[in-house]
Amino acid sequence: MFSFEIKAQTGAARAGVFQTPHGNLETPIFAPVGTQATVKTLTPAQLDELGATLVLSNTYHLYLRPGDELVSEMGGLHKFMQWPGPILTDSGGYQVFSLAQTRKIDDDGVTFKSHIDGSSHRFTPEKSIQIQENLGADIIMAFDECSDPNDKAYSKTAMERTHRWAERCLTAKRRDDQALFGIIQGGIDPELRAASAQFIASLPFPGIAIGGLSVGETKEEMQNILKLLGGFLPDSKPRYLMGVGTPEDLINGIALGVDIFDCVLPTRLARHNAAFSSEGRLNLMNATFSKDQRPIDDTCSCYTCQTFTRAYLRHLVVAKELLAGTLLSIHNLHALIQLVKAMRVSILDGTFESKVPAWLQQWKGNAERDINNINNL
Amino acid sequence: MFSFEIKAQTGAARAGVFQTPHGNLETPIFAPVGTQATVKTLTPAQLDELGATLVLSNTYHLYLRPGDELVSEMGGLHKFMQWPGPILTDSGGYQVFSLAQTRKIDDDGVTFKSHIDGSSHRFTPEKSIQIQENLGADIIMAFDECSDPNDKAYSKTAMERTHRWAERCLTAKRRDDQALFGIIQGGIDPELRAASAQFIASLPFPGIAIGGLSVGETKEEMQNILKLLGGFLPDSKPRYLMGVGTPEDLINGIALGVDIFDCVLPTRLARHNAAFSSEGRLNLMNATFSKDQRPIDDTCSCYTCQTFTRAYLRHLVVAKELLAGTLLSIHNLHALIQLVKAMRVSILDGTFESKVPAWLQQWKGNAERDINNINNL
Repeated sequence: MFSFEIKAQTGAARAGVFQTPHGNLETPIFAPVGTQATVKTLTPAQLDELGATLVLSNTYHLYLRPGDELVSEMGGLHKFMQWPGPILTDSGGYQVFSLAQTRKIDDDGVTFKSHIDGSSHRFTPEKSIQIQENLGADIIMAFDECSDPNDKAYSKTAMERTHRWAERCLTAKRRDDQALFGIIQGGIDPELRAASAQFIASLPFPGIAIGGLSVGETKEEMQNILKLLGGFLPDSKPRYLMGVGTPEDLINGIALGVDIFDCVLPTRLARHNAAFSSEGRLNLMNATFSKDQRPIDDTCSCYTCQTFTRAYLRHLVVAKELLAGTLLSIHNLHALIQLVKAMRVSILDGTFESKVPAWLQQWKGNAERDINNINNL
Repeated sequence: MFSFEIKAQTGAARAGVFQTPHGNLETPIFAPVGTQATVKTLTPAQLDELGATLVLSNTYHLYLRPGDELVSEMGGLHKFMQWPGPILTDSGGYQVFSLAQTRKIDDDGVTFKSHIDGSSHRFTPEKSIQIQENLGADIIMAFDECSDPNDKAYSKTAMERTHRWAERCLTAKRRDDQALFGIIQGGIDPELRAASAQFIASLPFPGIAIGGLSVGETKEEMQNILKLLGGFLPDSKPRYLMGVGTPEDLINGIALGVDIFDCVLPTRLARHNAAFSSEGRLNLMNATFSKDQRPIDDTCSCYTCQTFTRAYLRHLVVAKELLAGTLLSIHNLHALIQLVKAMRVSILDGTFESKVPAWLQQWKGNAERDINNINNL
């Protein structure tokens, strides 16, 4: 179980297959985010139809509601949410730092207050693994601390704690049907990142996650880190760039050797009336679309583009109909998943490098990644 | 076009086929409501899968937003909302009286202010027909005035105006690919209802709608009116009971000769966490469902019941996930559509009358119809 086979490589970009108990992941792959055991506004049938294979869900949210023990009693997350394919859960670390109301970090763990009701809770590496074992995803994450990338001293402290916690997660893990990935931290400092990559790569993780990116650094800084990490990471393990990203980030990430991505961007944009397109990101609220008989993107084969006009989608948006969020989520997720699949095909047939400039050009208008803008949507 | 053939009759209950340009309607039939050119939270693909044939949309809402002329330019309502089957539009009358901010009625028409932006508008019988011809539904409605059923004097005035407006609608109508139904009014007064039925039945409408019910009268009053009307309406025309209703209303309505129903109840209840079931109406917010591994209704064949547990649905409801509204809408619409289909089958095979008591018993706990309660949900 959890074998990773590279089928083709061109430059740093790889096309592979990662085996999991709920099916093979053809990498590179983009995973929709189903924070609360549902990819917002979509049924599992719709997710399957738009081409999703791997779905991410959030440990922090599910621990608070409905509770990991309840999910376990109900037969685990696959059965609970009726997603038969592979699932990945994060460790809860990032959400504790970004969502919880107050938090106190010590070397043993983090005490925090729920963003839902203010109740007090404590996560440790052992607790995070226990929760993730209750949830039962195919891929689980070591508990980590994500720092401000521009604060070198804090990045060092957080990285060292992340390393100690990684070892504790490996020790705590009991289930052998889950692949535990270690997480590299170190902010945007090359020395810290190199040290973190070497340390995490030295531990017996079947996969390696890159944390602490897409959290405020520039695109150039992110790419420099990815280039650097490529020199330290073994080819034999899948690499997961957490929480990324835009079409441009996916193209650059794959070119630099990343295998797995996830991001809330496509579904969050959808619920705020925005759609990826080869003309750039469209805001469907815009009056210019009121009589536009074209689909969002006439090169797109998703249900939304095969069925509805921009004029109709704009009507739904203006009338605040919930169906708008569903139809735009279908399109945005399909767009990213198909883009990544097209890149995989081109790695396999040797045309990847020649196609990258055209892809970057095509998706340029969708490149905005500012996390604050995204979060404020 | 618009032929109505009765295939079987048992007591007053009839099973028929009504031909429309976008397909045959097998009556009795229940129509989901797509107020703003969308049945809330559902794609046309989901509507088709759950068994819907006829969809209702609202003239008042579409006139205000996105505008009937825009819908016409986009190829009409079928193409705009991508519903390939039959569509029915109401006349806008009921919404002008129930939703618009202020309204001034005279014999020629109604001047009202939009509930969206307070802008001033005027509907006349001719205008309602013009709007409905722009929208292009298969079945359209004469412009009517709905009175307070307990105010006899007003009911008489409104009925007489409705009659004059019915004649004007017939004169105004231009398209021959739309079936214009006349509407019976008269509140709960037997004499007024009898007079209205006789008058509307005397005009060359291919179908007859029963308006002004389910607006505050008792269930007994509604049934008495339906019994009375049966004596005045020709068998040869389909009968449409507007805005009704609960499972109990459908059973009693079909037994009294009604062929077509529509109601927002199943989708509105869904968005407020309630589901029809053979155990009575369930509120999925209820903590008793938190670990309930059963579907909403283990006799139901809808996608929701075939896929998800009450525990999962409760989690979605508690977590305020929009998917809850989608999944409960699928179930509630499927439940009413299949109930009506089962009644049709039993009319055809002669078992209808023997099955009515069991249906009434089975659906008793879902019978609540108080329109104020529904509207306040």
